[in-house]
Amino acid sequence: MKAEIISIGSEILRGQIIDTNANFIAQKLTKSGFEIEHLSAVGDNYKILLSLLKKAFNRSDLIITTGGLGPTEDDITYQTIAKTFNLKLIKYPEAEEHLKKFLNRIKIKISPSNLKQTYLPESSKIIINKYGTAPAMILEKNNKIICSLPGVPREMKKLVEEDLIPYLKEKFPPSVIKKSKILKITGLGESSVNELIRDYINKQTNFSFGIYANPEDIQVQINAHAPSEKEVNNLLENSADYLKNILGDYIYGYDEQSLEEVVGILMKSKKLKVAVAESCTGGMLGELITRIPGSSDYFQGGIISYNSKVKEDLLKIPEDIIKKYGEVSEQVARSMAENVRKCCHTDIGISITGIAGPGGATKQKKVGLVYMALANGKETLIQKHHLFRNRQVIRLRASLRALNMLRIYLLNN
Amino acid sequence: MKAEIISIGSEILRGQIIDTNANFIAQKLTKSGFEIEHLSAVGDNYKILLSLLKKAFNRSDLIITTGGLGPTEDDITYQTIAKTFNLKLIKYPEAEEHLKKFLNRIKIKISPSNLKQTYLPESSKIIINKYGTAPAMILEKNNKIICSLPGVPREMKKLVEEDLIPYLKEKFPPSVIKKSKILKITGLGESSVNELIRDYINKQTNFSFGIYANPEDIQVQINAHAPSEKEVNNLLENSADYLKNILGDYIYGYDEQSLEEVVGILMKSKKLKVAVAESCTGGMLGELITRIPGSSDYFQGGIISYNSKVKEDLLKIPEDIIKKYGEVSEQVARSMAENVRKCCHTDIGISITGIAGPGGATKQKKVGLVYMALANGKETLIQKHHLFRNRQVIRLRASLRALNMLRIYLLNN
Repeated sequence: MKAEIISIGSEILRGQIIDTNANFIAQKLTKSGFEIEHLSAVGDNYKILLSLLKKAFNRSDLIITTGGLGPTEDDITYQTIAKTFNLKLIKYPEAEEHLKKFLNRIKIKISPSNLKQTYLPESSKIIINKYGTAPAMILEKNNKIICSLPGVPREMKKLVEEDLIPYLKEKFPPSVIKKSKILKITGLGESSVNELIRDYINKQTNFSFGIYANPEDIQVQINAHAPSEKEVNNLLENSADYLKNILGDYIYGYDEQSLEEVVGILMKSKKLKVAVAESCTGGMLGELITRIPGSSDYFQGGIISYNSKVKEDLLKIPEDIIKKYGEVSEQVARSMAENVRKCCHTDIGISITGIAGPGGATKQKKVGLVYMALANGKETLIQKHHLFRNRQVIRLRASLRALNMLRIYLLNN
Repeated sequence: MKAEIISIGSEILRGQIIDTNANFIAQKLTKSGFEIEHLSAVGDNYKILLSLLKKAFNRSDLIITTGGLGPTEDDITYQTIAKTFNLKLIKYPEAEEHLKKFLNRIKIKISPSNLKQTYLPESSKIIINKYGTAPAMILEKNNKIICSLPGVPREMKKLVEEDLIPYLKEKFPPSVIKKSKILKITGLGESSVNELIRDYINKQTNFSFGIYANPEDIQVQINAHAPSEKEVNNLLENSADYLKNILGDYIYGYDEQSLEEVVGILMKSKKLKVAVAESCTGGMLGELITRIPGSSDYFQGGIISYNSKVKEDLLKIPEDIIKKYGEVSEQVARSMAENVRKCCHTDIGISITGIAGPGGATKQKKVGLVYMALANGKETLIQKHHLFRNRQVIRLRASLRALNMLRIYLLNN
């Protein structure tokens, strides 16, 4: 089954917004077993949209449009779809009823332009949009399907998950179940991952694999298919287990898991508390940890010691240590971790001090040099990293390396 | 002049990556006066790409492709372009020379598959890619232009700015200069901005306007054109000045400026120093401030007082104040700002305490309730906000409101 996605909106063509809708829909349709051959974006332009819809109807089994369902003159999706198939636009009473209720709830008076949103191509199946005013629809025609969704990402996503995907599942009970599993890796580069798993990958015939390098991690995606959900799950689990044997703790998580989430789970299970002392990251490590709801169970807080005076006054690092070794040094990282642990009364203290650039480098200490430390009251672990790219990427990578240092510590203690 | 952009790569169609390249190129071409009618993404599929290239060549004056220039079998862009125009692929010696130098520098041996990257469609103008191995090219044919760029965003961006745009400027000296200016607004909602400037907008015939709502701000874009750079700059300045009179300090910046950058400029000019005390934002305010290179001139650091014990021990907030009013209260916000200012020896202390959710709410204090304070040693300003959406958006908005509170303070003091 071939699918294509058409994003409608002149702001996409002018580069004012990034079209994230197409990406979301592409992910969901791929998971549902469709093969996507075209993604297109066009403006609020009747002639161009009409021509594209005709082409799409010729070459694809499923067409998803997003955008152009609003109340203004620019919004021409339904009108153009109606023209494509020589259909009339007719009033859907359930659309009007929903619109009145929805606007009443947010205390807005209904205007004539709103009423435009109650007209859909005849013979289409309306999808009431609980999250906004624009109704979506599904139209079946010559064994092909066209589905129009609103362009507001939040509304579109809800309707895809709650309406479109269940509809497609019922319409096309899959003969083969396709599923993917993502292994998330940190601490190894793309080429090292590739080398470690290449032999295994090349031997597999039931699977396809992808390796993707991101600023924050390396991801290995395993794609499998089988006649049943159970079989495909088994295939994926076995393959993931095999790769886990090769890659070990370099794998920090799976699928949607973030590093901070994995660390949170470990912290909770170990019933430990942590505090942070941050210099060049300015609070980013604390920010990452507290993205997780319930992080107050294990995160106490910390000190942002951006200036050396704060290192001395709040973190009680002796001035002569800073003078002798410099703010970016193993010794200062060590003191930061040990002292923040003490003053926040936690089991673990973590610190980061480094040169994020573009300024601040010396002959001996280049931009990207970062020291981090983890203190537990008995011993203090130190890591030294040379990170690359720009200021914000260096800061992000430093924060993630520190989080990963905590993860590895928790796994081994 | 009509332009279109074709992104090539199966990972886009499967939704594995968001196509940000098309957005970047669309922005740049729009600024250069081109009208973009189609954005498309297709996979590494010869037949589909060939058909799309033929259509694109019929309907557009300028075609930009991105992706598919790598050394592997999948990378078929040049081969397909050559077929589209019945051209041969020929070896470009300068491509081979660059490839050898580039690989030598990063200590990688040249392989036969690399050599594929030295073949381009005959009669094309090669663009040596200083940032990677894949050369780009420009091909002129029947008064139309096709330009192929690599898919790696960093390489693509550099080649657009350093090669493509200068080439287009020389080829098409613009008869009309089009330019835009963006006004960045915080503290007002989209509909309030709309109401305030609607009358002015409707009266203008030389301009078009767009209003965009983001999680972090509202943006008003003014689009103008004139025969010369000077005239269009004048038009934009006058229009921006007029809107500045209406919107006042709700405008925090222009074009690429971020709120933290504007605050940084103000802090430097006032020669003041600031420290932060953060609860629900967990370090995000500090992280935002320190995104700016040179922020060490005005940012000293601060305390992440996620837990009430840290508020008591490090921020010296009396336990009975916390007990009496609760951690999320005007009184605690006040003490946090006043005390972080003292213990970091700064001119200004800023604090944030709130309920980011999803847990932590009570009958009286709902998710999204955030108090913030700004202390300068003489007085302490307090703000109370009710913020919406999810945990991370509430935290981002809280941090930005606090930054904006600092901006307004600096403007008035």
